[in-house]
Amino acid sequence: VSELPAPLRWRDGALEILDQRRLPGAEVWLRCATWRDVAEAVRTLAVRGAPAIGIAAAYGVALAAPGERSVAAAGLKAARPTAVNLAWAVDRALAAADPLREAEAVAAEEAARCEAIAAAGAALVPAGARALTICHTGALAAGGPGTALGVLVRAHREGRLREVVACETRPLLQGARLTMWECMRLGVPARLIVDGAAALLMRRGEVDLVMAGADRIAVNGDTANKIGTYALAVLARHHGLPFYVAAPGSTVDPAAADGGAIPVEERDPDEVLRIGAPAGARASNPAFDVTPAELITAWITERGVVRTPPLP
Amino acid sequence: VSELPAPLRWRDGALEILDQRRLPGAEVWLRCATWRDVAEAVRTLAVRGAPAIGIAAAYGVALAAPGERSVAAAGLKAARPTAVNLAWAVDRALAAADPLREAEAVAAEEAARCEAIAAAGAALVPAGARALTICHTGALAAGGPGTALGVLVRAHREGRLREVVACETRPLLQGARLTMWECMRLGVPARLIVDGAAALLMRRGEVDLVMAGADRIAVNGDTANKIGTYALAVLARHHGLPFYVAAPGSTVDPAAADGGAIPVEERDPDEVLRIGAPAGARASNPAFDVTPAELITAWITERGVVRTPPLP
Repeated sequence: VSELPAPLRWRDGALEILDQRRLPGAEVWLRCATWRDVAEAVRTLAVRGAPAIGIAAAYGVALAAPGERSVAAAGLKAARPTAVNLAWAVDRALAAADPLREAEAVAAEEAARCEAIAAAGAALVPAGARALTICHTGALAAGGPGTALGVLVRAHREGRLREVVACETRPLLQGARLTMWECMRLGVPARLIVDGAAALLMRRGEVDLVMAGADRIAVNGDTANKIGTYALAVLARHHGLPFYVAAPGSTVDPAAADGGAIPVEERDPDEVLRIGAPAGARASNPAFDVTPAELITAWITERGVVRTPPLP
Repeated sequence: VSELPAPLRWRDGALEILDQRRLPGAEVWLRCATWRDVAEAVRTLAVRGAPAIGIAAAYGVALAAPGERSVAAAGLKAARPTAVNLAWAVDRALAAADPLREAEAVAAEEAARCEAIAAAGAALVPAGARALTICHTGALAAGGPGTALGVLVRAHREGRLREVVACETRPLLQGARLTMWECMRLGVPARLIVDGAAALLMRRGEVDLVMAGADRIAVNGDTANKIGTYALAVLARHHGLPFYVAAPGSTVDPAAADGGAIPVEERDPDEVLRIGAPAGARASNPAFDVTPAELITAWITERGVVRTPPLP
C-alpha cells in the first residue's frame, strides 16, 4: 500500500504547503511563515479542498501574533467564500488558548473523520463497480485519505471498485492533474474523460455510481461542490444511478437553511479564457454549483451513511 | 453587417482551407493540391463541421486523377467516421461527370440550405433570449452562415437574441476558439463558460434555449453531435427548456434506423491528456455522443421546423 500524499506539514515554526498548482509536474513545498502567506496560498489554490483549506487556515491563525488574530481570522475566512470548513476551523483556532495545538487537533480530527467516511462509504460500492468522480477529493484535499476519493481508494483496496472515472474538471483541471496523480500513485485504476463525456459513459453503462465531495451542505441537504457536480447529479438521476456526497460533518452549515444561502464563488474569467479564447472575449467562471437535496441518494459523513440530510 | 468567415476557397487548381486549428490566434490558409492533402486536413481538423467537411471532401474527389477517384473517395470517407455529409458529398462528386462542378454545386447548395435553416430557426428564438450552444456551428463549419450558430446570428440580426452562451467544448475548445471568434467578428454578444457550468446557468435562469448542430441524424431522429451535447439535452429537459437541432437535410442518414447505427469516433486520448494529466495516465476520448430523439424539441432543416424526425 502506497503512502497517502499529504498536503500540509508544520516545520520550524511555519506551515509548509505542497503546492497543488504545480502538480503533477513538480512536487514543490511552499513555506508560509505568516497568516497572510497562508491566506494567499488558499486564495490562489496552492492548497485546496474543503477540509485541507480549513486545516491550513487554522494553522494560519496560529501564525498570527496574539494581538492580530482577529484580523488574521477575518482575512483567512475571506480567502475563499464557499467552503464552510474554512470559517469553522478558523473560529476554532481563534477561540483556543493555544491556536497551534488547536490547528493540530483540527488536522487530526479531520483525518479521523475522513477515515470513518472511507470505511462507511466503501460499503456502498458494489463489486466490480466503476465510479465517476469530479474535481479532486483525495488525501491532498483533506486530512487523511480524503472524502469522495478516499471512499473510492478504500473500496479498491477492499477489492470492490474496478475503476475510477475522473472528470477532468475544467477550468482548473483538478481531476486531470490531481485525481489522476493520486490514483496512479496509490495504484487505483483510473481513466480520465472530459466533463462533457460523463453522460455518454452513463448511457453506455460504463459508470455504476457517482461519488462527489462537498464544500458546504445546507441544513436541508442542498450541497455546494465544484462546478459541474450539479450536472452529474441530474445525469445520474436520468440514468437511474446513485449519486453520493462524501464529506465531514464540518461541511454542514447550520446557518444555511438551504442552497440559496450558500455563496457561490465567481473566479477570474481568465481561468476559462486563457487556453483558447480570442483576446477580449467575455466569460463567466462560477467555481461551484449547488445540487438540490432531492438529487442526492445519500450523504456519507464520519457518522455513517444517511439518506436524509446530515445534521450539523 | 460583417462578412461571414468562409472556411474554403478554390484557387489556381487547389483547395485552400482556413486552418481552424490555428484560430483564433492566426488566419492561415492551408493549400491542398491533392486528395490526400484534403483527407489529412479533414482528419486533423484543419477543416471541421459536418457541412464543411462534406464540401471539402467533394473538392478532394475533384483533385484526384480520373483513374484514382474511387480510391480517393474511400480515403476521404475514412478520414472521419461520424458525419454523414462527408460520405454523401463524396458520393455526389464521384458520380458526377465533372467532380469540380459538382463540388461547387454541393458548396452552393449547402450555403443555400444554411440560409434557409437560419431563417426558419431564428423564428423560434423569443425576444431577449439567451441561447446556449456547443462546439462551433457557424460559417466556418459550413457553407453560408452555418447551422445552429447561423440561426443564432440571424436571430440577433433580427433583434431577438440577447446573448450566445458558448460551451467551451473540451477537448478541442471549438466553442472557446471558434464560436467566440465568429461571434465577436459578427458583433453578436457572446459569453464563454466551461462545459460543466451549463447546468448552473440553466438553474439560474440565464439560458432560455439550447441550439445544437448535428453530425448525423438517424431515421428515428436520434442525433449524433459533439461530445457533451447529450448532457445538454438531458439538462434542458430537466429545466424545462427547449432543445433544438439545426442541420441540413444532408445530415440525415437513411441507412441509420436509430442512434445505435451511428459510429462514434474515438479520437487520440492525448487530446484530453495533454493539458494537465500526469505522464502515463489513461483517458477515453469519444468525440461525439448521440441524443435520443425524445429529448429533442424540434429539428430545423432547410425545409423548416419539424417536431417529428426530419426525412432523409
